[in-house]
Amino acid sequence: MRRAAIINIGDEILLGQIVNTNASWMAESLSEIGVQVVSHQVVADDAEAIRSALDLAQKQASLILLTGGLGPTKDDITKKVLVDYCGGEMELDTSLYERLQMYFRKLGREATEAHRLQCYMPTEAEQLNNKMGTAPGMFFQQGKNWIISLPGVPYEMKYLMTEEVLPRLQKERVGQHLKRVTLLTVGRGESQIAEYIEDLEDALPDHIKLAYLPHLARVRLRLTATGESPDTLTKELDYWREALSERLGDLVYGYDQTELSEVIQAEMLKRKLTLATAESCTGGNVAREITSNPGSSGYFVGGLIPYSNEMKQQILEVPKDVLQQYGAVSEQTVRAMVKGTLKRLGADIAIATSGIAGPGGGTAEKPVGTVWIACGNADHTIVKRLQLNKNRKLNIEYSTIWTLNLIRRFLMAL
Amino acid sequence: MRRAAIINIGDEILLGQIVNTNASWMAESLSEIGVQVVSHQVVADDAEAIRSALDLAQKQASLILLTGGLGPTKDDITKKVLVDYCGGEMELDTSLYERLQMYFRKLGREATEAHRLQCYMPTEAEQLNNKMGTAPGMFFQQGKNWIISLPGVPYEMKYLMTEEVLPRLQKERVGQHLKRVTLLTVGRGESQIAEYIEDLEDALPDHIKLAYLPHLARVRLRLTATGESPDTLTKELDYWREALSERLGDLVYGYDQTELSEVIQAEMLKRKLTLATAESCTGGNVAREITSNPGSSGYFVGGLIPYSNEMKQQILEVPKDVLQQYGAVSEQTVRAMVKGTLKRLGADIAIATSGIAGPGGGTAEKPVGTVWIACGNADHTIVKRLQLNKNRKLNIEYSTIWTLNLIRRFLMAL
Repeated sequence: MRRAAIINIGDEILLGQIVNTNASWMAESLSEIGVQVVSHQVVADDAEAIRSALDLAQKQASLILLTGGLGPTKDDITKKVLVDYCGGEMELDTSLYERLQMYFRKLGREATEAHRLQCYMPTEAEQLNNKMGTAPGMFFQQGKNWIISLPGVPYEMKYLMTEEVLPRLQKERVGQHLKRVTLLTVGRGESQIAEYIEDLEDALPDHIKLAYLPHLARVRLRLTATGESPDTLTKELDYWREALSERLGDLVYGYDQTELSEVIQAEMLKRKLTLATAESCTGGNVAREITSNPGSSGYFVGGLIPYSNEMKQQILEVPKDVLQQYGAVSEQTVRAMVKGTLKRLGADIAIATSGIAGPGGGTAEKPVGTVWIACGNADHTIVKRLQLNKNRKLNIEYSTIWTLNLIRRFLMAL
Repeated sequence: MRRAAIINIGDEILLGQIVNTNASWMAESLSEIGVQVVSHQVVADDAEAIRSALDLAQKQASLILLTGGLGPTKDDITKKVLVDYCGGEMELDTSLYERLQMYFRKLGREATEAHRLQCYMPTEAEQLNNKMGTAPGMFFQQGKNWIISLPGVPYEMKYLMTEEVLPRLQKERVGQHLKRVTLLTVGRGESQIAEYIEDLEDALPDHIKLAYLPHLARVRLRLTATGESPDTLTKELDYWREALSERLGDLVYGYDQTELSEVIQAEMLKRKLTLATAESCTGGNVAREITSNPGSSGYFVGGLIPYSNEMKQQILEVPKDVLQQYGAVSEQTVRAMVKGTLKRLGADIAIATSGIAGPGGGTAEKPVGTVWIACGNADHTIVKRLQLNKNRKLNIEYSTIWTLNLIRRFLMAL
């Protein structure tokens, strides 16, 4: 199995003006066919920088993929560095030049001198025919090592990866395979999960690795297995996924790419139930998550965002004395909000959120970050109190995830 | 001026499961204060890989920024590599451990053994206090060189960059100055704006550069001036900002980091007006934008998300025959929604959105991406029809921006 190093050449990525989606796309495509990616590097359109990047990559990998630094403008020097690096020389490729002239004639334009210069190609490289643009890819073979240069324009790079690079890699592969599965958990932190599964993690065979990927009240657990038999790997991963899922119980909400709101949608549609929302502190963010999925109108009736106490009283019928006695941020208020929402919007299930998102508005008794959430139906309501921190945007994000999780747990207990 | 190398540690980025937004954010922030970024590297959570990345970075840069590889689980090895690399040893930081214990006690949980191990810190590093998470940043000084290790969680990294790293860099700079101003526009594309300001752009002096940064119905125009006198640069930038603003008129909604929702909030509070929302296709996203700002409860009364036609009729009093004759996605319906919202929520101004977000649900007459938005008060209502594309998430984002811009324009015309 080859190990791959990716080098992206270009000032725009380097200076952060664009995000490096080329690297992630390439890495994902390579991982999918079992090629292990060991590094990405982003460097300037500069001979010395490209050379250093190649030096490091050669130590790590037998497949080096470069993008960018090709094309008609004068800051493109990749080709010269590659010729210095791989041997051979530059030669005008007349048939390439003719194709380019024809291409421009079809567009009603003329190829420029810069385009002619672009047709000087390294004699040691096999050209990769780029049907999406004017600069061909280049394939250098150095003993067993491959150095492949691709254009930086994403759809040109993707075309050449898909049509030329990935098929060559698949053709030569023998033996090693790689399989992956990810468990999605919500409700506990990385370290607590690590404690729950410590013995299982220690018992994992050497060829199966576990990684913790935490993000906003959720932790993804990724199992990666490498070996010779894809069937055995699949069976082994099934076994460990089951073992971990059993241990973690209802902390696991799904596998691989599933969103919490998708889990809720599937469950609601299956049970033919409808949902309505009443969001104070989350300000519409729970509804936004729910309605981001196609098909959500199949179960989501609608929502209310009762930001003012007047709206809580008038539309949601939260009793005035509940608001006065317990305050808007209280268990009693979110319970009343659930009740009012069920009644007003005629849904089977309703949620409510109320909290002090911050940065201002806290008191000694109810500091910034105090949030109450509730989920209920005509029969019963479950509530949860969160104590978050002072960052408004994060408090809204966390409260949203916890609310979605409360709906999930409510559905599981039905 | 320092040259910087960025090293992002983590399998998720390396394998292409997430896009490396940390690198682009860091690179942009560093470039903005005049630090030249010379490379990004992405490597695995592996001692040898981190060491090689450091070796290369040290050859290129006097500032090395690492992200990731910190945290309580055992796959984190960055600290050990840095101690090997920079000298010193690991020691339990008891005050850090006490803070962490307190932090968890507040959350009603206990710090785990993994958290205690996380509090072993390199003796040679100055700690950077991470108020957003449990893992502090580390600042190593190696002669004139700086090696800084930050958490990989984006908001923790951003917090430490903003509060600790960028101020230190700004403090040590001498000589060459760099000033920047960004004009924020909404409503026209990059090429149209380029046409409007072509002569001004051509007249810019060599030491002032203009960059177009388009994003979701908005284009930011960033002017960057370099020179020896900060006062002169400020005066020059003021002049060009004024010239561009005058030319672009009400396309400009603000400068630098301002959000559209902040512009609306300032204007509403100044005029002592209140706002309410009724969102069908945007599903709460407009309210979410509005309530993401502290102080929004000073003018935002609340919102409705009438996803079903029943809710449009019952709560918003959209006449049944309007829905039947023109459909939910129509000028008549969003006008009726504005009217109903003003009445139900008692606000001075209301907005309404209704559209086919997709990917399904389109017809020949109203294809996917058809969206109607409206903004009005007791006297009059303005409406706009958008024809977007088939991507649900983008359609929601675009509709939200256009709705916020409609509120801004409504306020400007009052």
